[in-house]
Amino acid sequence: MDSIRVIPLGGVGEIGKNMMILEKDKRLLIIDAGVKFPEGDLLGIDLVIPDISYLLENQERIDGMVLTHGHEDHIGALPFILDQLNIPIYGNRLTLGLVKAKLSENFSAADDIKLQEVSPGEKTSIGNFTVELIRVNHSIAETCALAIFTDLGPIVYASDFKFDQTPVDGIVADFHRLGEIGDMGVLALFSDSTNAEVEGYTFSEKVVGEKIEEVFISSRGRIIVATFASNIHRMQHVFDAAQKYNRKVAITGRSMINNCQIAHELGYLNIPEGILVELRDISKLENDQIAILTTGSQGEPMAALTRMARNDHRQISVHPGDTVLVSASPIPGNERVVGDTINRLYRLGAKVVYQSISGVHVSGHASREELKLMCNLVKPKYFIPVHGEYRHLYHHARLVEELGIKKENIFLLEPGSILELKADKGEIVGNVDMDRVLVDGLGVGDVGNVVLRDRRMLSQDGIIVVVIILDEEKGHIIGGPEIITRGFVYIKESEELINEAKAMLENVLKECQEKDITKWSSIKNRIRKALHNFVYQKIKRNPIILPVIMEV
Amino acid sequence: MDSIRVIPLGGVGEIGKNMMILEKDKRLLIIDAGVKFPEGDLLGIDLVIPDISYLLENQERIDGMVLTHGHEDHIGALPFILDQLNIPIYGNRLTLGLVKAKLSENFSAADDIKLQEVSPGEKTSIGNFTVELIRVNHSIAETCALAIFTDLGPIVYASDFKFDQTPVDGIVADFHRLGEIGDMGVLALFSDSTNAEVEGYTFSEKVVGEKIEEVFISSRGRIIVATFASNIHRMQHVFDAAQKYNRKVAITGRSMINNCQIAHELGYLNIPEGILVELRDISKLENDQIAILTTGSQGEPMAALTRMARNDHRQISVHPGDTVLVSASPIPGNERVVGDTINRLYRLGAKVVYQSISGVHVSGHASREELKLMCNLVKPKYFIPVHGEYRHLYHHARLVEELGIKKENIFLLEPGSILELKADKGEIVGNVDMDRVLVDGLGVGDVGNVVLRDRRMLSQDGIIVVVIILDEEKGHIIGGPEIITRGFVYIKESEELINEAKAMLENVLKECQEKDITKWSSIKNRIRKALHNFVYQKIKRNPIILPVIMEV
Repeated sequence: MDSIRVIPLGGVGEIGKNMMILEKDKRLLIIDAGVKFPEGDLLGIDLVIPDISYLLENQERIDGMVLTHGHEDHIGALPFILDQLNIPIYGNRLTLGLVKAKLSENFSAADDIKLQEVSPGEKTSIGNFTVELIRVNHSIAETCALAIFTDLGPIVYASDFKFDQTPVDGIVADFHRLGEIGDMGVLALFSDSTNAEVEGYTFSEKVVGEKIEEVFISSRGRIIVATFASNIHRMQHVFDAAQKYNRKVAITGRSMINNCQIAHELGYLNIPEGILVELRDISKLENDQIAILTTGSQGEPMAALTRMARNDHRQISVHPGDTVLVSASPIPGNERVVGDTINRLYRLGAKVVYQSISGVHVSGHASREELKLMCNLVKPKYFIPVHGEYRHLYHHARLVEELGIKKENIFLLEPGSILELKADKGEIVGNVDMDRVLVDGLGVGDVGNVVLRDRRMLSQDGIIVVVIILDEEKGHIIGGPEIITRGFVYIKESEELINEAKAMLENVLKECQEKDITKWSSIKNRIRKALHNFVYQKIKRNPIILPVIMEV
Repeated sequence: MDSIRVIPLGGVGEIGKNMMILEKDKRLLIIDAGVKFPEGDLLGIDLVIPDISYLLENQERIDGMVLTHGHEDHIGALPFILDQLNIPIYGNRLTLGLVKAKLSENFSAADDIKLQEVSPGEKTSIGNFTVELIRVNHSIAETCALAIFTDLGPIVYASDFKFDQTPVDGIVADFHRLGEIGDMGVLALFSDSTNAEVEGYTFSEKVVGEKIEEVFISSRGRIIVATFASNIHRMQHVFDAAQKYNRKVAITGRSMINNCQIAHELGYLNIPEGILVELRDISKLENDQIAILTTGSQGEPMAALTRMARNDHRQISVHPGDTVLVSASPIPGNERVVGDTINRLYRLGAKVVYQSISGVHVSGHASREELKLMCNLVKPKYFIPVHGEYRHLYHHARLVEELGIKKENIFLLEPGSILELKADKGEIVGNVDMDRVLVDGLGVGDVGNVVLRDRRMLSQDGIIVVVIILDEEKGHIIGGPEIITRGFVYIKESEELINEAKAMLENVLKECQEKDITKWSSIKNRIRKALHNFVYQKIKRNPIILPVIMEV
């Protein structure tokens, strides 16, 4: 009996690290391989990537990977994954252009990777799968939904999308093809849940273009525009407005410069002749001839706009008369740092234009009315809300219930869930063991819960190191206790506390000797316990206490 | 020549730690003494309080302190301040009730503090100052603006406020008195800027009451309502709805229980006879007879709702059929933890009602139209926007400019600014040296930038401790290098790395001996530098490196 298995490795019950496996006749097709940016409790972690153990165990069964679009949360894990999996990658021109740039930067074996360009609208065989890319809209150009044709009917994978009726590149979503596939009897629809709580329609990117133009019309000084480095349409707005109102454009921020170049080379960004200037040359221009495109719309500590706001950008200092446009909304968790950047820019005298006071950003994700339209076009039997926290998936599920999708045919998955879809029935039949994989510097997976717990404790109250030296033969204490702290108290002002602690520990150690306690673990435990109690009682803090015993 | 000096100790250019000094004829009046909850970069810090060095230096010149309302960001610093300053405190009944409870909990000398109750509408002498409390609305009952009468005209201090035309307690703001004072020729208006970016009017608290009632009408299972423990009107809604729809109310969360009791005793909260039940007794009731009031609306890790969501509340486990109402909006920075709580509650099967999907919360702060009304009622010569980040102050300033306040008469202050107001001219004449004071456990001010920097580094990449033992006489190395790490890598999986590091350090130390380098600081520097380079090259991390040298 025919059946399809669905195994998400990420992107359900969370925003980011989108990766999905479809399994048919024992063959695997992978969709996307994204990263997730770490949440607040993942101290020191740079990225979270999907756990691909299941893929490694079933490597010979993989036919390939197809990419929906070029955002980090859909392609960012490739450098980590292609290290271990040698599989062909399919995607459209822009997506693969961004992948190539990413791989050549991060990955020595980049040349060995087979990248296969696919045009929207044409059917492509990926091993045993037949896949078609279907144009939708999103905050990066050439985003596609996927149709995967199976004996049980097509599966539609509507990764991140919106329906923009007046898109910047003029290419509206392929409503007709979605409807046509809908008439074939779609087995399952996977659909973007990011904005499942937002009523109505998401505004067109065109609205942002108009707002940006307004700023160009009304500003006499320099204009600095910060946005996501991947938002090529947003960049286009800036180039268009600059041309219309006689400004040159300089670009700052590495990712912005790179993406601009890639999008330009591949024909996705129209940069008018002679409009680009080097940042170092803008001083030769009048203020009202300057527009600057920059990274830092999320208040990232090292990004160009953040540096400008802190007044430590090497080439640009913000001053009265400048207008700064923050053309992005803060990703949840970034509200404070973005707010801080805005406050600093105001303090420097700039006029700041940002989302909460004007419409200089629109979401790239479909709101509730568009989600309904997608579902009504595709008319699936089974529905799997993806790309959202649990509450988004929940609301998306309730939404399509209203459209007539049966509750028992809607599946809220977790990473690792195994969903089996048959013609008559879908059910979760088990799950693949799954862990998140943390990337910290060059280390992938070497930081786990123990290290994170320690970092958390260290971040709260610091560490006290206690060193004692024992006589190798008799086990007598011949040095210490020496106390060193970091992140605990400002030592010069707390000498008394440390001295008291030392005296207290000397007594503890004396007691150990008197009672003939020589086992290192016992001595360490006593030190830890005594010092913990002492410190907590004195100043209600709970630092990590690290006793070190040495022998000579 | 008469003049008034204004010195904010906090609450300008920041949200929280509101505290203001007015200085007239060398005498000081203090308004409020609030705390600020620490931002993300203040690792391990519990509270930030104003730096009161200036008050300590001028103690004999202080006439007293008057409080506008009972929120933490206006009274929370009192236990720390009254320790050092013996001054009389003035405020209305509810505010002082909350202060009393706070002091008796935190403060041994609570009984010695002179608390003087003042009724709104009556003029009170505080030393050389004449002060009148004027009723406004806010998210805590009996919030007042202040009028301080001076020879140069009255000063109006409109601390946190909104104008609620249908308030829960029936007491609308005293528009008439504000207008009357406005006609006296007001010298200066200080006004709440929190919502200076929000267009229109803030909704009435009544709207929330209606929404809460809707939930009571439509729910069959238990109803759990989380809100701020200080929002007495919100609690009143819950008691009212519970009475109307035949539910008992149980309360969980220490601050909620305390505030409920104080507000009830002082007559601000009407708790219908027999409606309160102990939490442990709710199991005797049917689900549709139960309403639970709880803390945790901000996702605070130890609060009752957060525990319920994590399934580790001792008395309540959330299950399908329960409706949870999160009647608050996340304070900036808390979005993620609040979202996490909501996701967990959904996963447990509860229905969750929260602000982004329904109107179960309204702000306590005036929006732009109300800010205009306040300014037009009071008609001040000078305007000082307070209670906001810089961008809020900035927009508030632009707003009142539109009303005809002259730009040169508007002052955006920073903590410590000294603003001098004369009949003909106001100007910033200098500033008081000012630091923020950090509270961590029982320590006040013993954590500064060095400790915070260490905590930040520790939180990102952990610590490596290197211990070596020298021979006291000859300075030879007779023990170590011993390497211990915390928060760096999971040691069992990284043994090789640590062993390599050890071998590398042995060479460094050998070199030291060969070159006869015996100065401890030089040896430590070499260890630090070599290990830093080694670790960064190997895995691109940057832990704190702590060399410890012992001698025996």
